[in-house]
Amino acid sequence: MMKDPLALQLLGEFLGTFILILLGDGVVAGVTLNKSKAQNAGWVAITLGWGFAVTMGVYASSFMSPAHLNPAVSLGMAVAGKFPWAYVIPYSAAQIAGGVIGGLVVWLHYYPHWQATKDAGAILGIFATGPGIRRYFWNFISEVIGTFVLVFGLLAFTKGQFTAGLNPIVVGILIIAIGLSLGGTTGYAINPARDLGPRIAHAVLPIANKGTSDWAYSWVPIAGPLVGGALGALLFNVLP
Amino acid sequence: MMKDPLALQLLGEFLGTFILILLGDGVVAGVTLNKSKAQNAGWVAITLGWGFAVTMGVYASSFMSPAHLNPAVSLGMAVAGKFPWAYVIPYSAAQIAGGVIGGLVVWLHYYPHWQATKDAGAILGIFATGPGIRRYFWNFISEVIGTFVLVFGLLAFTKGQFTAGLNPIVVGILIIAIGLSLGGTTGYAINPARDLGPRIAHAVLPIANKGTSDWAYSWVPIAGPLVGGALGALLFNVLP
Amino acid sequence: MMKDPLALQLLGEFLGTFILILLGDGVVAGVTLNKSKAQNAGWVAITLGWGFAVTMGVYASSFMSPAHLNPAVSLGMAVAGKFPWAYVIPYSAAQIAGGVIGGLVVWLHYYPHWQATKDAGAILGIFATGPGIRRYFWNFISEVIGTFVLVFGLLAFTKGQFTAGLNPIVVGILIIAIGLSLGGTTGYAINPARDLGPRIAHAVLPIANKGTSDWAYSWVPIAGPLVGGALGALLFNVLP
Amino acid sequence: MMKDPLALQLLGEFLGTFILILLGDGVVAGVTLNKSKAQNAGWVAITLGWGFAVTMGVYASSFMSPAHLNPAVSLGMAVAGKFPWAYVIPYSAAQIAGGVIGGLVVWLHYYPHWQATKDAGAILGIFATGPGIRRYFWNFISEVIGTFVLVFGLLAFTKGQFTAGLNPIVVGILIIAIGLSLGGTTGYAINPARDLGPRIAHAVLPIANKGTSDWAYSWVPIAGPLVGGALGALLFNVLP
Repeated sequence: MMKDPLALQLLGEFLGTFILILLGDGVVAGVTLNKSKAQNAGWVAITLGWGFAVTMGVYASSFMSPAHLNPAVSLGMAVAGKFPWAYVIPYSAAQIAGGVIGGLVVWLHYYPHWQATKDAGAILGIFATGPGIRRYFWNFISEVIGTFVLVFGLLAFTKGQFTAGLNPIVVGILIIAIGLSLGGTTGYAINPARDLGPRIAHAVLPIANKGTSDWAYSWVPIAGPLVGGALGALLFNVLP
Repeated sequence: MMKDPLALQLLGEFLGTFILILLGDGVVAGVTLNKSKAQNAGWVAITLGWGFAVTMGVYASSFMSPAHLNPAVSLGMAVAGKFPWAYVIPYSAAQIAGGVIGGLVVWLHYYPHWQATKDAGAILGIFATGPGIRRYFWNFISEVIGTFVLVFGLLAFTKGQFTAGLNPIVVGILIIAIGLSLGGTTGYAINPARDLGPRIAHAVLPIANKGTSDWAYSWVPIAGPLVGGALGALLFNVLP
Repeated sequence: MMKDPLALQLLGEFLGTFILILLGDGVVAGVTLNKSKAQNAGWVAITLGWGFAVTMGVYASSFMSPAHLNPAVSLGMAVAGKFPWAYVIPYSAAQIAGGVIGGLVVWLHYYPHWQATKDAGAILGIFATGPGIRRYFWNFISEVIGTFVLVFGLLAFTKGQFTAGLNPIVVGILIIAIGLSLGGTTGYAINPARDLGPRIAHAVLPIANKGTSDWAYSWVPIAGPLVGGALGALLFNVLP
Repeated sequence: MMKDPLALQLLGEFLGTFILILLGDGVVAGVTLNKSKAQNAGWVAITLGWGFAVTMGVYASSFMSPAHLNPAVSLGMAVAGKFPWAYVIPYSAAQIAGGVIGGLVVWLHYYPHWQATKDAGAILGIFATGPGIRRYFWNFISEVIGTFVLVFGLLAFTKGQFTAGLNPIVVGILIIAIGLSLGGTTGYAINPARDLGPRIAHAVLPIANKGTSDWAYSWVPIAGPLVGGALGALLFNVLP
């Protein structure tokens, strides 16, 4: 897979995660913000939007990098022996940077709508995940389970005989499945860069009507996905 | 298809049915439980969620087993002469076991939400199917018809020239089609393991606010799918 | 395409149209009937349900016949020079017969729900199409336009380089597209067998709470699709 | 790609954009107009409808032309060095003409429904885009960003190893993704022909209950997509 030097791969991870967050945070913005034509479009819109965001992020980067777009995936691939350990940190940095810039462009895209929206919690929910019921241990478990399914699924795709020509779409369907089925608890970060990157953007940008960036919760969507991704890879490793 | 020894196949059936029930019961939990972000997401969310749950269950197991994930499918394949009769019982046991563990992990994933949900009938509906109108004979017929379409459809896929590379997605679309079109009556178990496995989990787990496990109904989603699956295979057998 | 004798092809058309109507009328029943779990699931559910009904009807028949499942398609293929004119009438008869039996099985599948539903117009709407605004000329035009897009699209698929392995899914997406975009006026019969077959079933079956079968309208979803299908084929013929 | 003479390509662009606008404006008409069966079907219906409209427009034209169906795509392909500059203007004219005729046939298809709908703004919204919040600079930026993603995505597809056999469906998913995630601000024209063509039809046709064609806004969905498409191609050009 490593057909290009590291710099090009990092560019791919940055660009793909940028597209992922622009489209993913974008669908939440569209469903949430006042005077958006997509307002109140509902959970099906959000889960389809995030799934296709990943599909398009993979297409936008897969000619440059393996399109992990997610530190938990990079970690899981390293645990599975399919990715160099030394690349996990630089990949993660590129992915988080892509997430920050994705959050920035979502802010610009919907610029007049922030002024029209008075709910600071809803605005934070566009950039970062938060729990339906705040109980850190169980929120952590929820992120572990969701990312376990993600990484185990991605690894299973590599062994099946079915995926040629379909990979970014199949990955998008996996994200839709996780969102529909496991997303109701914590909003399915299942990706540290997806949460930390745009949370940083939320913290530093002068977004109208914004409130706290809720850093107290921010460790959950980092630690949960990393543990879940590692566990998914470990299960895959012990299978024949 | 039987390229691996039986133990590996049973592991595949267990693991695939686990993923199927985790994601399938998970979408009902997300749509049903209080304070879930997916609450009231509706029937389209549920049918897409179950369809993609099957797609991902097939991907997660198809490198180890034929990915029946359903005793009615195993029985139908035996009736169609495509699967050894002696394997039907062990496959079914592995599938039911996967369903029990899937129900267990759904309980853990949504742990804080059970306390927040007071409707015992809704909680049972996350784990097991139940009829919109309770008339056992017609509920049985409904499960027969749904599973007839399922097994006949799966067998038809094996004869078409269209499915290479697409099989798990096509199977998911078949599940979505059955759910949308035939699911309104009994909640489309169309799979004894999908109903019995998590119903057992519901019965034994200390789920907050749970009520009866409605064992009086439990024979319908076992007998109906087995009869329907056999009939679908018999029709397929008599076609040229 | 004609690799099998006529009798087998007619069996395929009968069986495929049966599946099409069972699933297609089934989704309308699920969304319409009282105490159905799918009640009020909305237009997206209906259009996805009909699209996937066609996909599954094609899979269920394409190993026996060309899977027209629609007299307007058979006529259009004859106009395009891709199908023997002498087969149009027998194909149409098999398709209509499949539609009648499809309507019968929908009645059985939802049996307890007819008694619970008091709206005779809604019950007819499960079996047969009807206009949002009853103006026969414009209703006819609407069916012409919808079926023009259907048959021209099917013929275009035969010339593209894109469809190998995907055909039944692409046909389903075409049906979803026509439903979403052009279905709001007359309920998009775009298929004489889809309307006439189950309308006959509605007329003859002892369905609880049923009313008139509205035969005054029934010529529109026969004549409109036939004219539209022929026009779609004629446009295709004049293209290089 | 240029396997046919220009006239045939222009016919393909005209016909494909006609299908695109018939189905795309059609879904908005269905969701908007009184007494339509699709009324209030929501944003998911609209975004799926537009996505599949593009898929079908590509199928309907790709055997005659490269199926740009969009002056911003033609411009972007020229910027990327994959399309002759001299063809950009004639392609754009054919695409706009297809859009005019598409708008005309939408008017005919829904003919009795215009009389039943009293909201002139809603009627214009079927033919042309308009902003949720009217601030021309930010509306322009929004169209730039949406079309940047579109053209960069289309160019990325040409470099991936994944798309054989799937191209029109993948393009449709890209349109759905942009609609869900970025469409809430301006209604995602992302295509000058999609807006200008049917806006001309709205201006000249005797549509019942119509009001102004809002020409003051009409430069935004022309200039924004052209700039965004060029920027998407420029980014692609600088990538290795």
